[in-house]
Amino acid sequence: MSFADHIRACNNYDPARVVPLVAGEQRIGWLRHDNAAALAPFRHVFAVAPDRVRLVAQGDVASVSAAVDEVVEALVVDNRVPKWRNETFDVMTRWGDPPIFRLDRGAVPFFGVRAYGVHLNGYRRDGGRLHLWIGRRAPNKRVAPNKLDNIVAGGIGNGHGIAATLVKECDEEAAIPAELARRAVPVGAVSYVMETRLGIRDDVLFAYDLEIPPDFVPQNSDGELVDFTLMPADSVLDRIRTTDDFKFNVNLIILDFALRHGLIGIDDPEYLDVASGLHRPLD
Amino acid sequence: MSFADHIRACNNYDPARVVPLVAGEQRIGWLRHDNAAALAPFRHVFAVAPDRVRLVAQGDVASVSAAVDEVVEALVVDNRVPKWRNETFDVMTRWGDPPIFRLDRGAVPFFGVRAYGVHLNGYRRDGGRLHLWIGRRAPNKRVAPNKLDNIVAGGIGNGHGIAATLVKECDEEAAIPAELARRAVPVGAVSYVMETRLGIRDDVLFAYDLEIPPDFVPQNSDGELVDFTLMPADSVLDRIRTTDDFKFNVNLIILDFALRHGLIGIDDPEYLDVASGLHRPLD
Repeated sequence: MSFADHIRACNNYDPARVVPLVAGEQRIGWLRHDNAAALAPFRHVFAVAPDRVRLVAQGDVASVSAAVDEVVEALVVDNRVPKWRNETFDVMTRWGDPPIFRLDRGAVPFFGVRAYGVHLNGYRRDGGRLHLWIGRRAPNKRVAPNKLDNIVAGGIGNGHGIAATLVKECDEEAAIPAELARRAVPVGAVSYVMETRLGIRDDVLFAYDLEIPPDFVPQNSDGELVDFTLMPADSVLDRIRTTDDFKFNVNLIILDFALRHGLIGIDDPEYLDVASGLHRPLD
Repeated sequence: MSFADHIRACNNYDPARVVPLVAGEQRIGWLRHDNAAALAPFRHVFAVAPDRVRLVAQGDVASVSAAVDEVVEALVVDNRVPKWRNETFDVMTRWGDPPIFRLDRGAVPFFGVRAYGVHLNGYRRDGGRLHLWIGRRAPNKRVAPNKLDNIVAGGIGNGHGIAATLVKECDEEAAIPAELARRAVPVGAVSYVMETRLGIRDDVLFAYDLEIPPDFVPQNSDGELVDFTLMPADSVLDRIRTTDDFKFNVNLIILDFALRHGLIGIDDPEYLDVASGLHRPLD
């Protein structure tokens, strides 16, 4: 393993394996060829052509969402989509634009629509040495079970803002009180496009740093993380460089943290791989 | 103006306007069509084809550099290249690789070879409020005369390392003593590809942050900067958002600083333009 291997793993998307999903003149997703073909029967919702799939369902957000959801239910029966049923994401052409429809979170990679999340680096300075609070994901998580994770992370569901999602997830995942969570500093965003078994993950993760007071110990309440460990940041980096112990995208968030805090030496042979590999131009 | 306008201005490169410059199997530069055509007479050094220009001069670094330099002298006579004569850059396929040849700095954009530099954000915290030391470029500078600049910045000439270049430039440009300069923290790199009058700038700028002690006032000794001002960081950001007062690439370095230090609000409509626009994948 190497730092660059983790970056490559999150950017394994191949334009030759997908077609655009368009709404009007705008691209809103990337459909792998097999996923595009699976939409052909649903002509009242999607028009499938060899070079693109077009959303043809008409109406307001609620009616388009309902029409797409009928298709999603059929894809679930067909075992192509693992529906979550408790969380929907806004589908937009650009962050901040009004949603075109809402989509069950489990169907997001099938359609390759861009998803947004928040990740929190919870750090502590002990005698000038940086440490990171690292969580371990529960064995029953749908994605990356048992892998190491940030202290707090979560997807931004419809109707939730970025800062509000962070405060909510801080509470649920690590029992960080709101007044502490609000001290978290927004420090940028990491982006990647990754093909998975289900389709395409086109992810933008807003990164936050929060200095965790020495007397605070995180505790999980939603069952998503099973324990937390305070690790020296240089040990975390070694572990990223040499293992696959961290969830795929958490490697990138922590590399960004390490770079911003001067923990990667300027003469590290992978310095520019990290400095140039954590952000994709967003079309 | 907007933050995104500055990012777009530094990334105005259009692949349709250039051909690759190759050495063996590797691309080492981008030649604008007019610049490629101007190399046609020099058949012992470059083979010009419609879709690429190939370096054909043979030998060790010294002999290839001498062969290319004869071409550069002819381009100077032809008014296509403003030769600097005091600084050469290594031409490599990848940072850290051995150089293929050395090129006068003035000819770097003509050939569109990647150039590397260092930029230092010199900051001070006054009552919790961040300030930046900002320099003003001399009126006789070849590039961006009279524009506002970082406290220290410079290209990495051949034979100089990144950290050594920073310490040298800190001395020459701002009289920052070596022991203070060595406290600068490497925090990443900004990259862009920009067409200018001379050709293509394919630039990678290593960014450093340095907390400047309250009793230190920078002083220029090499004549490249004419004065320094300590400005509140939020005023600097306002000025970047609304004017063209800063040198083109300094806008990007300071936006990166602002992002990392939480000075750009998460709900700023340009947040993702900044967070995703400061780094290009390096081929």
